[in-house]
Amino acid sequence: MDDALHMRRAFELARQAHGRTWPNPMVGCVLVKDGRIIGEGFHAQAGQVHAELDAITRAVEPVAGATAYVNLEPCCHTAKRTPPCAQRLIAEGVARVVVANVDPHPAVSGGGIALLREAGIEVVTGVLAEEGEELNEVFFHTQRERRPFVHLKLASTLDGRIAMPDGQSRWITGEAAREHAHRLRAAHAAIAVGAGTLRADNPRLTVRLPGYDGPQPQRLVFSRGGKLPADAHVFIDADAARTRVFSGIPLEDALAQLHAEGVANILLEGGAGLAAAFLRAGLVQRVSHYLNPSYLGEGQAALEPYGLADLHRRITLKGVKYTSLGNDLVLTGRI
Amino acid sequence: MDDALHMRRAFELARQAHGRTWPNPMVGCVLVKDGRIIGEGFHAQAGQVHAELDAITRAVEPVAGATAYVNLEPCCHTAKRTPPCAQRLIAEGVARVVVANVDPHPAVSGGGIALLREAGIEVVTGVLAEEGEELNEVFFHTQRERRPFVHLKLASTLDGRIAMPDGQSRWITGEAAREHAHRLRAAHAAIAVGAGTLRADNPRLTVRLPGYDGPQPQRLVFSRGGKLPADAHVFIDADAARTRVFSGIPLEDALAQLHAEGVANILLEGGAGLAAAFLRAGLVQRVSHYLNPSYLGEGQAALEPYGLADLHRRITLKGVKYTSLGNDLVLTGRI
Repeated sequence: MDDALHMRRAFELARQAHGRTWPNPMVGCVLVKDGRIIGEGFHAQAGQVHAELDAITRAVEPVAGATAYVNLEPCCHTAKRTPPCAQRLIAEGVARVVVANVDPHPAVSGGGIALLREAGIEVVTGVLAEEGEELNEVFFHTQRERRPFVHLKLASTLDGRIAMPDGQSRWITGEAAREHAHRLRAAHAAIAVGAGTLRADNPRLTVRLPGYDGPQPQRLVFSRGGKLPADAHVFIDADAARTRVFSGIPLEDALAQLHAEGVANILLEGGAGLAAAFLRAGLVQRVSHYLNPSYLGEGQAALEPYGLADLHRRITLKGVKYTSLGNDLVLTGRI
Repeated sequence: MDDALHMRRAFELARQAHGRTWPNPMVGCVLVKDGRIIGEGFHAQAGQVHAELDAITRAVEPVAGATAYVNLEPCCHTAKRTPPCAQRLIAEGVARVVVANVDPHPAVSGGGIALLREAGIEVVTGVLAEEGEELNEVFFHTQRERRPFVHLKLASTLDGRIAMPDGQSRWITGEAAREHAHRLRAAHAAIAVGAGTLRADNPRLTVRLPGYDGPQPQRLVFSRGGKLPADAHVFIDADAARTRVFSGIPLEDALAQLHAEGVANILLEGGAGLAAAFLRAGLVQRVSHYLNPSYLGEGQAALEPYGLADLHRRITLKGVKYTSLGNDLVLTGRI
């Protein structure tokens, strides 16, 4: 019970650096001795100290004999900017290390844990592993799959419609949902749409939030090869240099290219055809679905057929969370 | 602030008789003197004392000078089984009466309030009127419209699908949602389906809950006039006498007939065509929508076109509440 409690605190600490650690994961560390927390720390930014060292530095008494709670396996490789944490924990005389997830990085991947155990330290792994995995889902996915993490955004009525048969579609969801969607954009390195959406809606694909001065995401347009409107906002506005077109190439190849360029995650904003293409190819890791509590009874669907053969093999979200946004609702879950 | 607080308590008291007061509304009463609650009561069952008298009887000191909080206007008519409450409150010397809703019953409808005011009692109305209205939504609707209250139940994936194109549809939602749906059935006097659903699913339309020994709802089959399967469960099982068929008659006429027979509320369980027909006719008062967090991308829609002309005039739910049911979700709202 205490292990879970302290690990949750390590997650909280890790999350304080949300959006600033890339390409590193978010990591928090709690040092506990005789049931009392004697030190806390987190990894604040790539290039700065790791969570373990931060906690050791801040500890209010010697950490010899303490238990270290850290959501990611301590590192053991030396060819990088920061000193290895496993060696440091050993040197400090830590008695026990509790870990949520093994580091998928090829230079660590169990090596840190092995080193600690060889030094006689008790190591417990897998504590709240699923929550730890979700905390760093983008990091784990890119490390394992060598592709950007793709987050599909959908917005529809309760009967899954996004527009009238004649195309009328503006403002299905309310103000609070739209602001939430802009915060979602701000948390992604790139935003993707299909050519049809570009033609129909001519979206700007920028983060528009009061007081927002963070980076603007890249803008990706996926096209099967047809002609694109040269006067679309994304091609002519001040940030036109941040717009990329992928025309007529397989989605996997486009994602491999974006990964090589360091794009960590992509918010896929539609339309229904591009969403189905990504789902069909198994390239979507998370869905966030904004629901307006209304019914159209007809009109364009949020999703086109994605090649479902059997009801029991349909795409189902796991670990679903939902939040009320004014009169709307947003659900999010992993695939 | 105190008025709202005490009115909420009156709602709580009223709700203790949920499902037992019909054809009367649920009513609770709180008596407050010098800021302290000196008596509480509610209407437990048709034929038993009204909430005001129950609270007066239970009061721990004389109610003269007290404020009475009661969600429904005190009655003033004498041609019924219980004595009128407005007269009793006057006789007891109550100083102030706070009411959520005026009684729509033609024999009361403001008369109770007028009587209290004529006697010099201060009367405040409309306190938490919307919540009071929702508490007794079936009662208010039937009193005003002389028709049963229709509650539409939908169950679909997040893209609004209920079945594969080939008809595969069993168990879209999980165990917790199905149990919730049976409790919903138990709260209705009748369950309605269309002929298509009868043919496709052959449902039993009974309340099946562990330990349930309450009344079973009537079963209504709406048909445009085609032939119905004579061997359907609802026609041949032990409760076949509780099955009614409305064939080829306008929905309004069927509802008028059911109202005349004392049917208070109907749970409309589908299919998509009957749901659209009721919505088109403006005959649905509440929707409960069970959502399984999955996507089909194709297949049968939860709702057929209901004659929507403009996006801004679509059917939108008000006062939406949602509850998690295992991996599923249920939303409910008024139309």
